[in-house]
Parts: sequence; C-alpha cells; structure tokens
Amino acid sequence: MRNELQALFGKVRMAARSLNQLDDAQRNDVLNAVADAIVRRADYILEENAKDLLRMDAANPKYDRLQLSLQRLCSIADDTRHVASFPSPLGRVLKHVVRPNGMELSRVSVPFGVIGIVYEARPNVSVDVFSLCFKSGNACILKGGSDAVCSNRAMVEVIHDVLRESGLNSDVVALLPPGHESTSALLDAGRDVDLLIPRGGQELIRFVRENARVPVIETGAGICHTYFDEYGDVVKGASVIHNAKTRRVSVCNALDCLIVHEKRLSDLPALCRKLADSHVVIYADSLAYQALEGRYPARLLEHATEESFGTEFLSYRMAVKTAGSIDEALAHIAAYGSRHSECIVTEDARNAELFTREVDAACVYTNVSTAFTDGAQFGLGAEIGISTQKLHARGPMGLEELTTYKWVIHGNGQVRV
Amino acid sequence: MRNELQALFGKVRMAARSLNQLDDAQRNDVLNAVADAIVRRADYILEENAKDLLRMDAANPKYDRLQLSLQRLCSIADDTRHVASFPSPLGRVLKHVVRPNGMELSRVSVPFGVIGIVYEARPNVSVDVFSLCFKSGNACILKGGSDAVCSNRAMVEVIHDVLRESGLNSDVVALLPPGHESTSALLDAGRDVDLLIPRGGQELIRFVRENARVPVIETGAGICHTYFDEYGDVVKGASVIHNAKTRRVSVCNALDCLIVHEKRLSDLPALCRKLADSHVVIYADSLAYQALEGRYPARLLEHATEESFGTEFLSYRMAVKTAGSIDEALAHIAAYGSRHSECIVTEDARNAELFTREVDAACVYTNVSTAFTDGAQFGLGAEIGISTQKLHARGPMGLEELTTYKWVIHGNGQVRV
Repeated sequence: MRNELQALFGKVRMAARSLNQLDDAQRNDVLNAVADAIVRRADYILEENAKDLLRMDAANPKYDRLQLSLQRLCSIADDTRHVASFPSPLGRVLKHVVRPNGMELSRVSVPFGVIGIVYEARPNVSVDVFSLCFKSGNACILKGGSDAVCSNRAMVEVIHDVLRESGLNSDVVALLPPGHESTSALLDAGRDVDLLIPRGGQELIRFVRENARVPVIETGAGICHTYFDEYGDVVKGASVIHNAKTRRVSVCNALDCLIVHEKRLSDLPALCRKLADSHVVIYADSLAYQALEGRYPARLLEHATEESFGTEFLSYRMAVKTAGSIDEALAHIAAYGSRHSECIVTEDARNAELFTREVDAACVYTNVSTAFTDGAQFGLGAEIGISTQKLHARGPMGLEELTTYKWVIHGNGQVRV
Repeated sequence: MRNELQALFGKVRMAARSLNQLDDAQRNDVLNAVADAIVRRADYILEENAKDLLRMDAANPKYDRLQLSLQRLCSIADDTRHVASFPSPLGRVLKHVVRPNGMELSRVSVPFGVIGIVYEARPNVSVDVFSLCFKSGNACILKGGSDAVCSNRAMVEVIHDVLRESGLNSDVVALLPPGHESTSALLDAGRDVDLLIPRGGQELIRFVRENARVPVIETGAGICHTYFDEYGDVVKGASVIHNAKTRRVSVCNALDCLIVHEKRLSDLPALCRKLADSHVVIYADSLAYQALEGRYPARLLEHATEESFGTEFLSYRMAVKTAGSIDEALAHIAAYGSRHSECIVTEDARNAELFTREVDAACVYTNVSTAFTDGAQFGLGAEIGISTQKLHARGPMGLEELTTYKWVIHGNGQVRV
C-alpha cells in the first residue's frame, strides 16, 4: 500500500508540472465547468452522500456537517465560480531589481506545486480545496475523513470527469483512501509534496506536527481572548464580547476567555448581560465570580478551574479572568493563547498601541469582534484555512498564500568576480 | 539536561518579548557596540579560538574555516556594522485595507520571536546570526559545532557583555552546549522556538528534517545545473560554466552538472576548455565522453556513473549529461536538482521562457552564472542562508525574510452579522 501511495504521489507531481501550461482563463473555464457539473450531477452526489449518512448516527453532531442537499451543492458550485472570478495570484512580480552589472532579477509568484490537505468530515472541503489549489496552479492530494468517503469519492469523480473532458491530466487532484496509512504516507512524502495543510481538530493537528517530514502550515486551533481594559467602553465591550462568543460557537475565532481589568469588575454584569440570553455558561475566577453572583443567572455561573483557561470551548461556554493590569492580561494571553485572534476593548490609545505591539497572534484587534478573522471578511476572497503559525502565512490564507515565488534572473553572460 | 534546556528556551522566549520595546536606532547602537567589542577583545577571542584549533588536525579541511585572526575579526565586526546600516525590516505595512464597515486592517511585518540556528564549524556564524536576528527583532538560540565550542563561547560572551552594558536582557542570544542532546531539545522546543534554520551539510539538514517538530527552513544543499541549449552562445556558455564551476567550489551555488544539447556536442570541448586550466575532473556520459576524448586532458576525463548525477560535488569535479531536447534537460533537472539554482544558456527567447517557467527552483537564470545566488549579490544585504524549500522564503534569505507579519485591526465596536 505504501508503494502504491508513493506511486500516486509521483503521478500527482508529474501532473502538477502540466498545470504550468495553463493560463488563467483556461483555469477559470475548468472551475466553472466543475461548478456546472456539481449541480448537474447532484443526484449522483446526493446518492453517495446518503451512503455516508447511513453509517452515521443522526444524533452525532457531525451529521449536519456531513449532510449534503441540492441547496448545499448549489452553494458549493457558487463558491467555485467565485474562486474563478478572482484575479490570478500567479505571475505577480513581487520585486524587480536591475543590478549594476546589467542582470535583471524578478521575484515572481509561482505555485507551490503539490499541496496535501488532511481534513475531517465536511465533504464540501474537497471541492473548496480543489478550486483554490487549481486556481493558484497547484495540484492537490486530498485525505478526507472516513465518515465522508463516498461523498468525497463522488465529488472527486465529478472533478476528474471535467478535467478529462477539458483534455487535462486528472491526476492534478487525487483522493487518498481513508485510514491512517494514507495520512502517514502523505506526512512522509518527501519531495513529492511541497506543503501540507491539516484542517481539523487539535488532535489531528498535533499528529501532523509530530509526524510530518514535509513542510506544514498549522491551522485552526483558536484559543481567543478579549481583554476589557481599565479604559474600555461598556457598550462596545458588551456587543464585541457577545458577538465574538455567540455568533458561531463552533468556529476557531470564537471567544474563549474574557479578561477584565480589576477596576472594571463592577461593569462585568453589564458586559455579560446579553450572554445570558444565549445561555452562555461562565467559568469565572473568584473576583469575577463575586462580581457576577446574583447579577448573572446562577445556573450559568460556575467557578473557574485551571482547565477553564487555555481551553478552546467551541460551545456556549467561556472563562472570565480578572487582571490587575494590562501587563497581567498580556502575560495571560502569552501563556494561554494559541496565537490566533486576540482583542482589546479600550478607549486609551496608549494601551491599544501596547496591546497591539505586545500580543503575538495572527490577528490583533482593538474594539472589534474576533469573529472577523476570516478570509472573506478580510477582503482576501476565499480561504483555505487560518494559519496559527508564523512561517509563510499567518491568519486567513487566501489564494496569494497558496503561492510561493521564484527568482528569475536574465542576463547576457554575466559572471561573478 | 533536557529540563535545563527547556528552562533556557523559556528564558529566551521571555527575553524575546523585551525586544519589542527597542526602536531601530537602539538596535543599531547595540550592533555597533558589539562590532567595537569584537575588535577590542580580539586577544581574548583569539586565545579561545587557539584552544579549538589545538584540538583539530591542521590538515583537516575544516581547520581554515575554524581559524580566526585579527583580520577576520575586523571583517566580522564590519559585517555587523553593515547589518546595522540597513533599514529596519520591521513595521513595514504590507497591506492596508479599510472595509465597508469602517474597520481598518493592516498587515505589518513583525519579528518571528525566537529563531534557532544549528550550524557547523565556522565561528563567525555566531556573530552573523546574532546581528541579523537582533536587527530583525528576534531572539536567537545558537547551536554551534563542537569543534568551535571555545570560539563560540567567547564570541557570545562578548555579545552578552555588550547587551548587559546596554541595559538589555542578555538572554536574547543563547548558546547551547555542544552535543546531540542540545540539537534534539531544540528540534522539539514546541512553542518556545518559532523557526529553526539548519546551516550545514546534507547530513545535518536531513537529521533536522526528520526530527523537527518546530517549523524549519531548509538551507544550503545545492545540486546546480547549467543547460547549454541548442541555441546557446559558446562564448557566453564557456564563461558562465567556468565561473559557476570554479569561482568557489565549496559553495552551494557551484555548478555540479552541465547538460549539453546533443546538437551542440561539437562545441563541448570549447565550452570546457577553461575548466582544464582549473584541473576540473569531468564525469561525462557516453556521448559527451566521445565529444571530449582527445580534446580534454585524459587525466581529467572519466566516464559518468549513476552516482555522478544528483551529486553536490563541492570540489573541482563536475558531471556532463547529453540531452536530446530541452524537455529531456528539464526532466533531468526535475529528477536530480535540489531546487536551488539552475541556468539555461540560450539565445532563443522561447526556450529561455520555457526553461524559466518550467524549472522548479529558487533561482532560475538565463545566460548568467549561478554563482550570483547570494543575498548581497541580489541586493538583499546580508543573508542568513539560502532556502531550498518553498515555504516562506526561497533562495537568499535577508533581513526581510527573518520577519513574519501580523494583522492589526482597529475599529470602533464593529461586530460581524
């Protein structure tokens, strides 16, 4: 099996080279044809999706994410057309220098080559990833979850058919068989994979980090704080906190821990009032607990434990920590954050500046909900994930972040003395 | 020992945060003071260097690289002053967007935080790396080779003294004890190290790739080709080939394999003539051997074996491969190159374009010696290494490549609908 997988990776590498010969208009034609085919062949895809759904308990929280419908397929097709509508991220001249000896250097954006993605139950990811990779000139190797095996196969079959009809090498997208062996082979693919992006839970990301021998961009895990400063505005604070916590609790940019300045504890009930309407359970440290007791529903108020901090809740739960100073808040974020999205609510320009400078995270907000950490919200178009590491791309990764560059040097026989 | 190393990494992480508070002028003052101190304390450094030299056989090829002198120390000091003279790579606004809801996004260059470097015998690297990291706002953890342990300790002691005299936390640069355990701990340092750069031979780089659990940029290994095309100019070809092979044979951008178009085999003796003056041994495939036999010194001409290709010679040796077409040359480079520096010699614009587009390497040259792959030659100032991977930085890495970015978002209470 390992040998077969390696042979497959080699075929994808070869196919990736063929992508260099397409121009952006040709790429967009293929993407639009894929979008059409997804809608045209909806019956087939939904039939295969039904097989996956049969194997899953309908009470499983993943059931909803796995389930496709004609409406969802239309929305996937729209997303694909949307990607086609973006300007090409390739061929941008990022730097241009003419040296004194006359040689001319250009730093030009180019595809990575082959991008591997390991992801979990959502079958729409298969199409999203293909669209973004194809638009940016990359071949991709997809390793989806076993829950979605029939759905993923059907989607990739539809894409393969369109690629063949367009006269292209269908190996520019490959779907690996489910199971750990595929993942392990991908992590060890050496020269055949240029970049690996794990999308999914912390366990998956940890596994990839510990075992990958190819370059990885970690995504997703977001332990996000909002610090309500000594000089915070209560009205702004309450709405930013409520939005960051409750807009969608299952996403990585959702609020996990509110840090409140000691001198503003008396405003804590007002800051949290709207959270009670959404039945948010608060794990409060002792000072915050005292401030909230009797002013927040008792059934939703609990004492924080050490586990309350540094936890990504992904649910209607949240920790509250009291800080004696902005430095204490910064130290807490440095110790417990995951470098994803962090926010300060303050009307004080110096504290805003200090927070912005000192917090080591992909996205640092002043007086804005962390719910905005998203490629489309940032104006990047679609996104393939949100990077929480610092190499190459940080925060939302759009099409530009799926490119690397090369130096192209033209001359006339120059030699170095 | 592992615990002590982890405690040290934690101290460096804390010290890195203090670097945010310096401005560029303060950083430059420190670098200039380090340069002064290296010259002022030359006697001490040379004494320690002598201890390292005593342990090494003077016939060892590494001896010369290990040996310091007053002149070399002055040149190290000059390099440090040179780094101080560059514009700061920090605080560059890489993107600025105001969204329809009024929130303002800036993508701003910031330090990585803590950079680990694993390197071999040259003691000047300790100072070079510190200068580049400090100028770019990064703390650094140095793991030098055991051959240079006394020299490295002396250099870092001089730097530490300057940092303390400047009122700074001297943990912004740490030198690890020699030995594998230090390297292993560094590869496994988790959140305390943001980026690891191995500098050295292929064995070191392979070890790092296989064992690192922190993000790595691979550097150095260069298996470089020059393809003399059907439409190549012999005069340009001869000088580009001679320069790429013989300017300095021990560097990664040196030529390893000349690929010659079959139709130009009759020009091969002229292309190689100057190489004979430098006693370059040629490992020629059968067609090239026939073309060279009797026209290149017999004592310098050998038959190529499979090992001749894909080898980084780092010496006065070189392979010659015959290609029936540009596609065959491209396939050979794809199979044997290390994605470092590749060159085509041609007067044909279409072939130049094809080569430039198809070759997957950090630096792709037309009619220019690959000896130019170097940060200073590219106008980037100093360089910390030459990346051969595609994530983050490709080719020469200067100060800008030692920064990452963060998104800073300012608003006035915006929430996401």
